Amino acid sequence: MENKGKIYVIGIGPGNLEHMSQRAKDAISESEVIIGYKTYTNLVKDLIENKEVIDSGMRKEIERCNLTLDKALEGKVVAIISSGDSGIYGMAGIMHEVVFDREASIEVEVVPGITASNAAAASLGAPIMHDSCTISLSDLLTDWDLIKKRLECAAMGDFVVSLYNPKSKGRVTQIEEAREIMLKHKKKDTVVGIVKNAKREGENIVITDLEHMLEEDIDMVTMVIIGNEKTYVKNNKMVTPRGYKI
Amino acid sequence: MENKGKIYVIGIGPGNLEHMSQRAKDAISESEVIIGYKTYTNLVKDLIENKEVIDSGMRKEIERCNLTLDKALEGKVVAIISSGDSGIYGMAGIMHEVVFDREASIEVEVVPGITASNAAAASLGAPIMHDSCTISLSDLLTDWDLIKKRLECAAMGDFVVSLYNPKSKGRVTQIEEAREIMLKHKKKDTVVGIVKNAKREGENIVITDLEHMLEEDIDMVTMVIIGNEKTYVKNNKMVTPRGYKI
Repeated sequence: MENKGKIYVIGIGPGNLEHMSQRAKDAISESEVIIGYKTYTNLVKDLIENKEVIDSGMRKEIERCNLTLDKALEGKVVAIISSGDSGIYGMAGIMHEVVFDREASIEVEVVPGITASNAAAASLGAPIMHDSCTISLSDLLTDWDLIKKRLECAAMGDFVVSLYNPKSKGRVTQIEEAREIMLKHKKKDTVVGIVKNAKREGENIVITDLEHMLEEDIDMVTMVIIGNEKTYVKNNKMVTPRGYKI
Repeated sequence: MENKGKIYVIGIGPGNLEHMSQRAKDAISESEVIIGYKTYTNLVKDLIENKEVIDSGMRKEIERCNLTLDKALEGKVVAIISSGDSGIYGMAGIMHEVVFDREASIEVEVVPGITASNAAAASLGAPIMHDSCTISLSDLLTDWDLIKKRLECAAMGDFVVSLYNPKSKGRVTQIEEAREIMLKHKKKDTVVGIVKNAKREGENIVITDLEHMLEEDIDMVTMVIIGNEKTYVKNNKMVTPRGYKI
């Protein structure tokens, strides 16, 4: 008998429902069970009334994926949700890995969303008009030496750099080191955009530079975007030119 | 008298309307004039009946932005649309620059969308679960030496690399050189995902490796995603582990 279960791994975008795709809404609506970190299930609470909702605390990713697979193997359509794009530092990878590990035969569809760096970029102006890197400063799962090497390579290549997870309560020095590494290759007046709660309630936008960026409030819901050597500020907008001759 | 004109720079996502955000739909609906390259205005034709639609050919970006500003200065709400995310190699930068250049006082709102690399990643599985770079291989506006340097830095840092504009009819050697540069630092069996028309009609997904990637059909509507050293393939899905111990 064919299993009718299915797993959707859904990126709900920055948080405000208006930035979610119709496909994400439809997939949530089709699902019988909704699983996610409770901050995210709260964000979509209007869409999930009358559904089985299983929310959990942070750092329970593997447990959450196993539960998702259990429910899908029972024949249910299950949505596991994360913010931004589930395919960018989200749940898509770990969900696939849990399915592989348990050798389960179940369809997994990743529904993309608007990722945090793109949401923050839109609020800043147009800082990611040219080649860019995204680097997470969380060393929970990644060796800090590898992260430092990537920061160095990104700075050397004069990429626009988006920093995910720049700072948390227990992890405060990484952003300082990251800035030091940037300064080895980028000038201290390189433009830096700092957006807290991009494209959702409580959004706060600051445009500063590498020299002064640490004076700003930076936390886990903040995106830090460091420009390339041509990035500039005008009319309170941060813009990285693509190279057009106007 | 205050000018009631406004400019929306809208990313419509991969092309299928279901991946567009509600905010993008609402902004189009609010707009009196819609301006864009005609492939894109065609993609949203169901949303723009009874509006003034100005479509133009390729490589008319500056002209399109000037026209957008002209219309907005007449007091109209104008949407200039591009595919994917208008903030990622899209129209957001050049639109701001034209407004700056003409010293116009007009509100410009960038409405983010799902960018091509994220759409392609969702179709491949979960290749961008870790630090990544996006690099455009188009040397129309960027010095090829700078692009080569960035490819080198991206390969050295073992980033996942998304290549935008990998190849066009008149530009065929860049993807070959890019591959050579990758091979200086990445193994020849590094996983490569190639997605044509990601998340829209005519989607085609291939998973191959650095050694064999040039055997595949690659063009301007193709996204090439090169994995890092830990990226693997299982059940036809390309996955880059984040580092969880399952």
